[in-house]
Amino acid sequence: MTSYDLVIRGGTLATAGESFVGDIGIKDGLIASLGRDLPKGAKEIDARGKLVTPGGIDAHCHVAQISSTGVWTADDFESATRSAMCGGTTTIVPFAAQHRGQSLREVVKEYHARAEGKTSIDYSFHLIVSDPHETALGQELPALIEDGYTSFKIYTTYDALKLSDRQVLDILALARRKRAMVMIHAENHDAMSWLAEKLIASGRKRPVYHCFAHNMTVESEATHRVIALAEMIDQPILIVHVSGREAIEEIRRARAKGLKVFAETCPQYLFLTQEDLDKQGLLGRMCMCSPPPRDKINQEYVWRGLADGLFDVFSSDHAPYRFDDPEGKMRGGPDAHFKMIPNGVPGLEVRLPLLYAEGLLKGRITLERFVALAATNAAKIYGLYPRKGSLAIGADADIAIWDPEREVTVSQSILHDNMDYTPYEGMKVKGWIDTTISRGEIVSIKGEPLAKPGRGRFLPKDKPDAAIPLGRSIFTEDISDIF
Amino acid sequence: MTSYDLVIRGGTLATAGESFVGDIGIKDGLIASLGRDLPKGAKEIDARGKLVTPGGIDAHCHVAQISSTGVWTADDFESATRSAMCGGTTTIVPFAAQHRGQSLREVVKEYHARAEGKTSIDYSFHLIVSDPHETALGQELPALIEDGYTSFKIYTTYDALKLSDRQVLDILALARRKRAMVMIHAENHDAMSWLAEKLIASGRKRPVYHCFAHNMTVESEATHRVIALAEMIDQPILIVHVSGREAIEEIRRARAKGLKVFAETCPQYLFLTQEDLDKQGLLGRMCMCSPPPRDKINQEYVWRGLADGLFDVFSSDHAPYRFDDPEGKMRGGPDAHFKMIPNGVPGLEVRLPLLYAEGLLKGRITLERFVALAATNAAKIYGLYPRKGSLAIGADADIAIWDPEREVTVSQSILHDNMDYTPYEGMKVKGWIDTTISRGEIVSIKGEPLAKPGRGRFLPKDKPDAAIPLGRSIFTEDISDIF
Amino acid sequence: MTSYDLVIRGGTLATAGESFVGDIGIKDGLIASLGRDLPKGAKEIDARGKLVTPGGIDAHCHVAQISSTGVWTADDFESATRSAMCGGTTTIVPFAAQHRGQSLREVVKEYHARAEGKTSIDYSFHLIVSDPHETALGQELPALIEDGYTSFKIYTTYDALKLSDRQVLDILALARRKRAMVMIHAENHDAMSWLAEKLIASGRKRPVYHCFAHNMTVESEATHRVIALAEMIDQPILIVHVSGREAIEEIRRARAKGLKVFAETCPQYLFLTQEDLDKQGLLGRMCMCSPPPRDKINQEYVWRGLADGLFDVFSSDHAPYRFDDPEGKMRGGPDAHFKMIPNGVPGLEVRLPLLYAEGLLKGRITLERFVALAATNAAKIYGLYPRKGSLAIGADADIAIWDPEREVTVSQSILHDNMDYTPYEGMKVKGWIDTTISRGEIVSIKGEPLAKPGRGRFLPKDKPDAAIPLGRSIFTEDISDIF
Amino acid sequence: MTSYDLVIRGGTLATAGESFVGDIGIKDGLIASLGRDLPKGAKEIDARGKLVTPGGIDAHCHVAQISSTGVWTADDFESATRSAMCGGTTTIVPFAAQHRGQSLREVVKEYHARAEGKTSIDYSFHLIVSDPHETALGQELPALIEDGYTSFKIYTTYDALKLSDRQVLDILALARRKRAMVMIHAENHDAMSWLAEKLIASGRKRPVYHCFAHNMTVESEATHRVIALAEMIDQPILIVHVSGREAIEEIRRARAKGLKVFAETCPQYLFLTQEDLDKQGLLGRMCMCSPPPRDKINQEYVWRGLADGLFDVFSSDHAPYRFDDPEGKMRGGPDAHFKMIPNGVPGLEVRLPLLYAEGLLKGRITLERFVALAATNAAKIYGLYPRKGSLAIGADADIAIWDPEREVTVSQSILHDNMDYTPYEGMKVKGWIDTTISRGEIVSIKGEPLAKPGRGRFLPKDKPDAAIPLGRSIFTEDISDIF
Repeated sequence: MTSYDLVIRGGTLATAGESFVGDIGIKDGLIASLGRDLPKGAKEIDARGKLVTPGGIDAHCHVAQISSTGVWTADDFESATRSAMCGGTTTIVPFAAQHRGQSLREVVKEYHARAEGKTSIDYSFHLIVSDPHETALGQELPALIEDGYTSFKIYTTYDALKLSDRQVLDILALARRKRAMVMIHAENHDAMSWLAEKLIASGRKRPVYHCFAHNMTVESEATHRVIALAEMIDQPILIVHVSGREAIEEIRRARAKGLKVFAETCPQYLFLTQEDLDKQGLLGRMCMCSPPPRDKINQEYVWRGLADGLFDVFSSDHAPYRFDDPEGKMRGGPDAHFKMIPNGVPGLEVRLPLLYAEGLLKGRITLERFVALAATNAAKIYGLYPRKGSLAIGADADIAIWDPEREVTVSQSILHDNMDYTPYEGMKVKGWIDTTISRGEIVSIKGEPLAKPGRGRFLPKDKPDAAIPLGRSIFTEDISDIF
Repeated sequence: MTSYDLVIRGGTLATAGESFVGDIGIKDGLIASLGRDLPKGAKEIDARGKLVTPGGIDAHCHVAQISSTGVWTADDFESATRSAMCGGTTTIVPFAAQHRGQSLREVVKEYHARAEGKTSIDYSFHLIVSDPHETALGQELPALIEDGYTSFKIYTTYDALKLSDRQVLDILALARRKRAMVMIHAENHDAMSWLAEKLIASGRKRPVYHCFAHNMTVESEATHRVIALAEMIDQPILIVHVSGREAIEEIRRARAKGLKVFAETCPQYLFLTQEDLDKQGLLGRMCMCSPPPRDKINQEYVWRGLADGLFDVFSSDHAPYRFDDPEGKMRGGPDAHFKMIPNGVPGLEVRLPLLYAEGLLKGRITLERFVALAATNAAKIYGLYPRKGSLAIGADADIAIWDPEREVTVSQSILHDNMDYTPYEGMKVKGWIDTTISRGEIVSIKGEPLAKPGRGRFLPKDKPDAAIPLGRSIFTEDISDIF
Repeated sequence: MTSYDLVIRGGTLATAGESFVGDIGIKDGLIASLGRDLPKGAKEIDARGKLVTPGGIDAHCHVAQISSTGVWTADDFESATRSAMCGGTTTIVPFAAQHRGQSLREVVKEYHARAEGKTSIDYSFHLIVSDPHETALGQELPALIEDGYTSFKIYTTYDALKLSDRQVLDILALARRKRAMVMIHAENHDAMSWLAEKLIASGRKRPVYHCFAHNMTVESEATHRVIALAEMIDQPILIVHVSGREAIEEIRRARAKGLKVFAETCPQYLFLTQEDLDKQGLLGRMCMCSPPPRDKINQEYVWRGLADGLFDVFSSDHAPYRFDDPEGKMRGGPDAHFKMIPNGVPGLEVRLPLLYAEGLLKGRITLERFVALAATNAAKIYGLYPRKGSLAIGADADIAIWDPEREVTVSQSILHDNMDYTPYEGMKVKGWIDTTISRGEIVSIKGEPLAKPGRGRFLPKDKPDAAIPLGRSIFTEDISDIF
Repeated sequence: MTSYDLVIRGGTLATAGESFVGDIGIKDGLIASLGRDLPKGAKEIDARGKLVTPGGIDAHCHVAQISSTGVWTADDFESATRSAMCGGTTTIVPFAAQHRGQSLREVVKEYHARAEGKTSIDYSFHLIVSDPHETALGQELPALIEDGYTSFKIYTTYDALKLSDRQVLDILALARRKRAMVMIHAENHDAMSWLAEKLIASGRKRPVYHCFAHNMTVESEATHRVIALAEMIDQPILIVHVSGREAIEEIRRARAKGLKVFAETCPQYLFLTQEDLDKQGLLGRMCMCSPPPRDKINQEYVWRGLADGLFDVFSSDHAPYRFDDPEGKMRGGPDAHFKMIPNGVPGLEVRLPLLYAEGLLKGRITLERFVALAATNAAKIYGLYPRKGSLAIGADADIAIWDPEREVTVSQSILHDNMDYTPYEGMKVKGWIDTTISRGEIVSIKGEPLAKPGRGRFLPKDKPDAAIPLGRSIFTEDISDIF
């Protein structure tokens, strides 16, 4: 019979499907048993009155990433995984981002080198494909999928990243043939950049005009377009960082038609608005990201989508650029127009605590939805399941324990990333992370880091079931052999 | 340390949120542990290669029910629970059906008397309220809710059952105040009966004309209407037996508006069509139910709704009237017009096996959806959770084991209800129920009954979380005190 | 060659399809020619710089009508036609309103008696059918249709008027068989009265709560329902006084499905809001009508519907109850709850001037839409075309001349009905009626009446083309013989 | 007093708003009077029993156009205007089509040269802008708009014509500033060409696969996209040749949002289907056009859109390529894949007769809609009104007289273009054109040409009212100065 390394006792154990009071017995870094009155473990955690869930998966974050123009994110794998684990996240899936002309295999190698020895929790990679050149499509991607890089992110915008619709179709078709998940950043590049140029030329340079350039129609247009492309070849896609009503409606329309369109949203669309980008002085830059925050009504639509299953995944889109960095948010100096400022907000550490406090505890989402959004769905959609995102027997003992009573005023001073601001500074919440456990090891208590860098492991991903086409076609004859 | 009464070993354990290979340890009729290599139990089941789920809940079935005109259903509690358990169902929630003028308290007593000593598995009751008289609304229902009768079914049609919109509002308001779930049979009575009379008067008497009277617009109109009533007072509702596209669209519209509208469908909307009602001779009568089966395209819409979360609950609406019974399907003799024939099809036993074989194994729905539809959602929506519908530690050990390899030709001869036909006669499927366990006791193996009548227990229901209003209002001022 | 009795010279002549500068030659009360430089008439009007349109048709107004409880409208046929003609209207179609138990033939006789000798302009009648008893359905209505009473108004609300869905179907089926147009006042009676009772019981008695009882969902529900009933038997209908967004959406959905659903709106939904019902003291009563005014956003939706063709008809729903009348708006005294106050606002005289100034001249609707809404569509839909509502050769010379420069402050003091208030008191507009001509006779100049009562003629209506079913059916077999 | 050159006597005169029996008096090529019993004219036409409408405007046809690869349309201005006038059309608006690199001013000159002396009826030009280079945008187009070239057609597809979204915005913004109408051919080029290449590579070369490449999603995606672009800068657009349901739905959604989106469809979407492209041998090529014909259900949606006002304009999109021409439909020889075949079908002459017979006479559209679609709306939308498209006093006496009794079997042998086939060969219809009159001159009787080439005049177009933005903005601040 079993003797446990660690027993978490008496908490409310919650999965994406169920919740009940019980104990978790952990052995060799894995979940060994769920039960009651389990035999004493070498270590014990008293979780009575607390919520025990699978550790969070942040499936959208930018870590140790360098832009095509040479700007680095403020966080490397050490600070990012430290920050994540202090916020209840036990797996991150950042990007291995190709610059045009690069070999994808080389890119993957580079990012592995950056992560090596620095991560405190486990990690995997999505590939950002900005140049689906012949070698990439014909050799590298098929092989990389077999090697566990089963998800790609592609962009319809940004000069350095934008794929044409043809290239989107190439990627979708490849994903269909080899079974991979395609994440899409959907904004109409032409419209955004046309507006941006005109706005700036007319003297409208402040951060708030970023919201005008990246307006909701720019987003909903591209959302509709990529859904149409996916529909033509019957390939599942996931729309990342959906910001509000009109984009949500496109996704609802797709679902009602029976299409397999997954959707993600982020904290910035729940807690920030366009007005935050119009704050005095340079503060507006802190909340600039793409798509930008909208308004209160759109926030309500996003909450509704979290509650009712429209959204599958809740990620941070952590894209950290410091305020004091002349290549970060201070780029271009005080008079810089909005196009010069790097896009992105941090969020690795607050993502789940905010969803817990404002979503679950305030009754906006159910417990099952909380777990599904925090961890389980990402694991399933990206091929990490059941090893991650679950309390399944045999799964990695990645666990988050939540304290409904803990009151916190959000402040950069309590966070552990390498940033010098949080857009949520001063926000008061009740309910926060208590303890984070990674493969059976307590890596954070009460928001303070315990684990040492280097213990994190790379996770190759399975081919996700979610990536299987439905087998429905808009054509009167089966032409799927051409995809 | 624990010694188990029963260990189910090595199956794929699936809940509404997760699935993994493991063992279930059962003790004193409860699920005691989930783990691997659990210590040997007094009894053991080898579930390798099989699927192990919570036992099914059939939350919509008519058992030992007598109509206002004195016609009994063919099944009593003995045959119904026997049939249900042979099909993987471990809990049924039939109706305690009020006739006009009756005391609800008396009705509940009567139905308890009918069930007493006859059930092989556990059961609870929904109340059918056909006469919300002052005593019913003011005294009986509030008290019955406290006693565990926390769900009501109401009708917008049938002469003997129909409530007016005012009465629907009375019921919804009561449910809001006291927290109960309201199930609604939504068809426009006036339109249906107006059409039926005209059809019959014109000589169109065959069963197929039942589909003309109960057409999709009759259903979608009432669906829209009751949603509007629920919206006005911000009260959750559940639309039962949704049959196809237009009604589904009304529910989608409600969801997109953020309303709490739950939905149920049944096997007859997946496997039968209007054409089945037009079979030669009297055979069409076998498939008559309300709403009636539609066509292949509508079936596709229903499948899509099962897959994507539109439907929360999958029930049988078992309403058994024998073919050889002069008060059953033979009513009125061979020349009877369609209004004379009692409505209803049987389905208690085949409900889950068909969903398993045709839905899960054919890839139309995921494993999590199968469990949610078969059991978990009904438990949550009706206040039986986590005792039922889960594999939670401490839950009743109600378990169904499914065999993906078992090939079956559906036939009344292999079923255990008190019927003389099944509408699915001759259907060949691969995948069927293997073993059913109720509170730790094996009650059926390979579709044969083992349990004795009398072991089933009545389940009072909690006030369901799902019944809590959203707190959204269409009014510019809070007037919720008037509801 | 012709010598004209009257020539209107040099105006911009506008029909629902065209506009051009030209002359109208009138002879014997009819339009004899359209041309330029027509020979001099016995009389001449210089219309240069002015707009010349068909005289308005107000197809929804309550005149000399007595309620089932004995309350008379403030206007009889003398004051109503005087007021109408001073506002550019040359035909009114008020109601001959049946009380339950009455013979429709008798009702028609009565109303003719009330109109006899009192009207200054032409008139016709819609029948209000509140009791479709056997004689009404079987004999009176078929005969009345042949006699030129080809349009009925029916209600889904008001205790004294409400038809059941069955009765609505009876009326629709009759209209289908005999070819008549059915106008429907669509509000859910049960929900409205249930809410009203609860609101009043809770002490919420002020007029503004009328808007809560008659909320938009009450309206959009019934709108959807009657459309569904009409769809089942493929019969055109016209929804009267549509007040805002959700009802409009139901009509758009119906249109997109190809249904023949016509729609009407009124000035009160363009220029009043719920806030007007919440004015201090008793002033709120002045704006009470059903459905009630909504808010600014809904006004915008109504304007959009006028502009884009959603609305076919623009009527006043003139329902005049004086403020100083103890059976009028003062009913029940100062403490009366909202249910005691008679519903209705006046509007016969301002209807078209306001649409002209605020709609046409402010660019919200085109000239063609103005004419269509003011006159032509009503003529076509109700069987008065081409005699009325057109500038067709041979048509009655009913003409309105509009002055784009005339500035007016709306005030009861400039109006000619028998009311003591207008809800639009104080509204300043630029653009107003200049001259009204009825059958070649100048009946009003600059808003002052010239014609004598008694010159108006009754207009029997043709069976309208608009009433012909589309021949589309929701049924898989043609069952139209049963309608 | 007037003496008329021509009197059309006793016909049913119909405009887009009205219809009545009467006479038209014509003098100096203009409509001088509408009346009854007009004085005798120098010439007389007895139109009793016939329909008299404004002459048709075909606002979408390709005449004497040369592709960027040097392929000419089969019709020049002589044959095209001859054919058009024999079918009741009195004005054509073909294209002056820019090739990349060309000066627009030069293009206009060239097309004028091609038309000079050859046209039998009046004509104007839309500009096809395939290269909005700096001179084009900055100088040529603004000046050309002032000169009467107030409408542009742009493409989102075809290698030689496709504009990027940026370029579309440039054109829309220019049109907004200078007030012009933008017509858009909306198909997703990337998706279409990606599919085409794969289809051909897989051996699917037959014409029917053209429908797979140019599938409905290809069309509805681009429709949605250009609407989004137009919405951002609040600029009216017109979507040409809409082929079916999904594209129609996008336009309906835009209208319901209040956007100014006009729409056109063509005979090929009413009378042809994908199956016609799959005819034996090479016959399928005869029906190839873009977008291609869909199926019967889509035809029904198009008819519904014609009936209910969704469509504003009905054009031929006459794009004539002969079957016997090695650079025409025979291009590439018998084994050519579908991409080699020039796109287009002829239709100038049959457009209106088919709409008259199949639309108006079969009751699918009203008389007012027939006139609006045939002529009036195009005149208004493109700035030719009221000179063309009307029976207004002072308008050009361009008139079509229709015979409801004439029975015709459509055949290339009765048509007058320079083609060797019609896709409607063999279609039997009742109702056809009787007489066509251009500026008072009878140019065709019973489908035979009478007028001589050279009498047609060029029509500069006014800035169309329809091109005025609504003044609604998606932005929270007015930024319209940047457009």
